[in-house]
Amino acid sequence: MAKLVALYKHPEDEKAFDDHYFNVHGPITAKIPGLREMKVTKFTNSVMGGKPPYYLMCEMIYDDAEALKNGMRSEEGKASGKDLMSFAGDLVTLIIGEDA
Amino acid sequence: MAKLVALYKHPEDEKAFDDHYFNVHGPITAKIPGLREMKVTKFTNSVMGGKPPYYLMCEMIYDDAEALKNGMRSEEGKASGKDLMSFAGDLVTLIIGEDA
Repeated sequence: MAKLVALYKHPEDEKAFDDHYFNVHGPITAKIPGLREMKVTKFTNSVMGGKPPYYLMCEMIYDDAEALKNGMRSEEGKASGKDLMSFAGDLVTLIIGEDA
Repeated sequence: MAKLVALYKHPEDEKAFDDHYFNVHGPITAKIPGLREMKVTKFTNSVMGGKPPYYLMCEMIYDDAEALKNGMRSEEGKASGKDLMSFAGDLVTLIIGEDA
């Protein structure tokens, strides 16, 4: 399995972020061909104390690196990327990984 | 479900890190009571270009926040924490989250 991990820093307006994330961005992203699963985690605590360094994580799981690449390059993938940049371009870090 | 997410920055010596991580740290951590699943992801690429900001992620999944807290406070949890600090104290970020 290959996965695209999106780590989001804390938004200024959490409610506006959540509204867009769950009602607009999630449904757009869910249409990407080859996407097997989306798993969203809300961060609540930092073990070392203080505010956690990220607000939310989304893991997008594909069969393999090729499927992930094809998904990102598809029209739906581009639409998701464009939407992402519109509401969280300054908050998000995108990393590609594989099960170890 | 509640999860503890460990994000590791790139170690200086990847081979030494991997050896310790997979042969020592993983088995110590796997003994923590209440731990349902450990999922390790190796990061390979940054979508924005450049080296990915993290080398590896481990997600440790518990039934709920209480089980996670009890696991971390257990003798096995303390042993895992002590081992973690011994080889990756300067690399790791630990964040607690919940399925969204």
